[in-house]
Amino acid sequence: MTGVFSRRKLLGWTGAGAAVAGVGAATGCAAAGAAPAPGERVVPFRGAHQAGIVTAAQDRMHFVTLDVTTGDREQVRALLERWTPAAERMTAGAETTPGGAVDLNPQAPPTDTGEALGLPPSALTLTFGVGATLFDKLGLSAQRPAGLADLPRFTGDQLDAALSGGDLCIQACADDPQVAVQAVRNLVRMGFGTTAVRWSQLGFGRTSSTSTAQATPRNLFGFKDGTNNLKAEDPASLDQHVWVQPGDGPAWLDGGSYLVARRIRMHVEIWDRTSLFEQETIIGRTNGEGAAFGRTAEFETADFSAVGPDGAPAIAMEAHVRLASAESLGGVRILRRGYNFVDGSDGQGHLNAGLFFVAFMRDPHGQFVPMQRALANDDDLMEYIEHTGSAVFACPAGLGEGSYWGQSLFES
Amino acid sequence: MTGVFSRRKLLGWTGAGAAVAGVGAATGCAAAGAAPAPGERVVPFRGAHQAGIVTAAQDRMHFVTLDVTTGDREQVRALLERWTPAAERMTAGAETTPGGAVDLNPQAPPTDTGEALGLPPSALTLTFGVGATLFDKLGLSAQRPAGLADLPRFTGDQLDAALSGGDLCIQACADDPQVAVQAVRNLVRMGFGTTAVRWSQLGFGRTSSTSTAQATPRNLFGFKDGTNNLKAEDPASLDQHVWVQPGDGPAWLDGGSYLVARRIRMHVEIWDRTSLFEQETIIGRTNGEGAAFGRTAEFETADFSAVGPDGAPAIAMEAHVRLASAESLGGVRILRRGYNFVDGSDGQGHLNAGLFFVAFMRDPHGQFVPMQRALANDDDLMEYIEHTGSAVFACPAGLGEGSYWGQSLFES
Repeated sequence: MTGVFSRRKLLGWTGAGAAVAGVGAATGCAAAGAAPAPGERVVPFRGAHQAGIVTAAQDRMHFVTLDVTTGDREQVRALLERWTPAAERMTAGAETTPGGAVDLNPQAPPTDTGEALGLPPSALTLTFGVGATLFDKLGLSAQRPAGLADLPRFTGDQLDAALSGGDLCIQACADDPQVAVQAVRNLVRMGFGTTAVRWSQLGFGRTSSTSTAQATPRNLFGFKDGTNNLKAEDPASLDQHVWVQPGDGPAWLDGGSYLVARRIRMHVEIWDRTSLFEQETIIGRTNGEGAAFGRTAEFETADFSAVGPDGAPAIAMEAHVRLASAESLGGVRILRRGYNFVDGSDGQGHLNAGLFFVAFMRDPHGQFVPMQRALANDDDLMEYIEHTGSAVFACPAGLGEGSYWGQSLFES
Repeated sequence: MTGVFSRRKLLGWTGAGAAVAGVGAATGCAAAGAAPAPGERVVPFRGAHQAGIVTAAQDRMHFVTLDVTTGDREQVRALLERWTPAAERMTAGAETTPGGAVDLNPQAPPTDTGEALGLPPSALTLTFGVGATLFDKLGLSAQRPAGLADLPRFTGDQLDAALSGGDLCIQACADDPQVAVQAVRNLVRMGFGTTAVRWSQLGFGRTSSTSTAQATPRNLFGFKDGTNNLKAEDPASLDQHVWVQPGDGPAWLDGGSYLVARRIRMHVEIWDRTSLFEQETIIGRTNGEGAAFGRTAEFETADFSAVGPDGAPAIAMEAHVRLASAESLGGVRILRRGYNFVDGSDGQGHLNAGLFFVAFMRDPHGQFVPMQRALANDDDLMEYIEHTGSAVFACPAGLGEGSYWGQSLFES
């Protein structure tokens, strides 16, 4: 890929003849051996797996699902082929096309919408997936993997169809939300006539760490979230729990992963009237440090067999950390990668706030379903939350040089 | 104010006996003469004017309006008195009360919701205002300033009552959105029984600079926005255009300002089909540099009398920059402080995106009204946007030591 016009250069933009820099130059600091400034970090777009899964979770997210508005498979395939270089350029901090915002034919609409001009790459990742509904629409039913079978209804589900499903998804994560929004908006724009937005979700703050180098963030219940998350530094566990392995299903998804999204409204007003003792008992960890009951430090392994002075389990049998633990679920683990959201107010005097749960896994029905069933049935936290949206997508493996999003499926 | 327990200290939290630091310590780096790390910046809560107006615009915003659910003036006054120290503490990077999240009575609900534990102050400002509807409800009609009279209906207005008005507003701006959200959520929580959320708006990216030290950001049409904004470095213009002066109206608002909020949905899909030439003609500036037509640099003064080679005005008579200019409006200027937003999708295949316009001024009817009337009637940009929410608030002057939000009104 040559001729990338880094948006950064536009800070000193002097017209079409100005410096043209390759992707390497966009990460010039790193090439020189020094750590790049935070905003300058570029996450490689191509690789064995898609970026945005085990990539150290960025601070902000814009997630969009789209429905195809055509049954013409070739038209959709061609869009994916057009999307890919634009996505790759944007993750490198460039416009969708060289000079796309400012120096192409002024009589034509700009090919880049321009709101990220001057902003650094901000570790943008764009992760692509396909939903169950896509396959029949495009005559690809034979390629639909078993993992995309509908999720069962869980106790307490209050799903809104307008916030659920979708033929395609694009997860944009970045440390600057304007960069994530710009990327989604430009891909949506390129899809006009082939795809239409089904729903979209902005996440303002990450609630998971996906690297041991990251501090554990807090969710809107004030607790550290995902202390025991799978981490990028444990590739063996990722192979076991996150990456689809050969033989799991149709070969086009080998090396990919399933993305489960759940929009979880959190009734923070009710939670906020609960005593700290009850809050901590429900979670099974202390609030301040985030240590499991009976431990003193966040990352000390929880001891689910420990009993308190009264002979009762130190961590309640219905505590969130116990129900969601690999120990209780026969070894099930997932890679969580969710974000806090506030979507205005609910019209009843409250903020419309919660957690946009995103997790990656090898098999939704063998991992997410038993975990969520246990939580939905027994977790006292359910009294304070409500699942209002749900979707599952199959995210293919990473892209080699010259390949495009979904190629393994569309050419399988 | 003593006994502030900096949230930062919780990174090494060791229990109730751990270090107790004053506000001064929260800005320790600055006290030692070195510039604080970006996240550590504390904006003083008290001063001649409220923070969050000429404060260099932070990156993120959470804006909330509330209605009072009581006609008891003393109950509302008491809430404002309770809100104030909590707000002050949060802007200093502390919990709402000392140790409020983790080390008070475990049998009581925490007095701080905890999701900002471990996060730095992030330049949080909390700006308070009162709306026209508050005065009758609390028997304060004689104190209602003329500036709070209803705005006229403007051409093209499509206002949603559920996104308009409010008895009270709190504008939270910070460089970390979790810090802004936490502050709003805690103030909302403290108001239960006295106030209820009317509407709330998250803004992910600033669209204005309020200091000459800041680069001009871009809105979702891809253009730099607010190049000619009033700036903190021009106090004489602020006195003329932003701060309510003695004699303007009731004395309780002297030194304050009016906040006009307009939720502006931007039909980016239509804009994106418009040629760069037409986009630039509508705005009156180039996209890349942001220079006025006929100029080459962003901050060169626009020449509205210049004509092009064809004898027509270089900047069209209906160009946005001309219609909104002080030259066209008899000297009217405002302090813009808005944010980009994306509120999911619109159910019709598009992102629900736009600009949450916030501006501060001395007199809404003498400044915002003529400006918006000119734009609503003649600006070609109106073809691409839609005003869906509207509100005006009177924001009192800044707080001296020991005073509380709204004291000048409630004790007037």
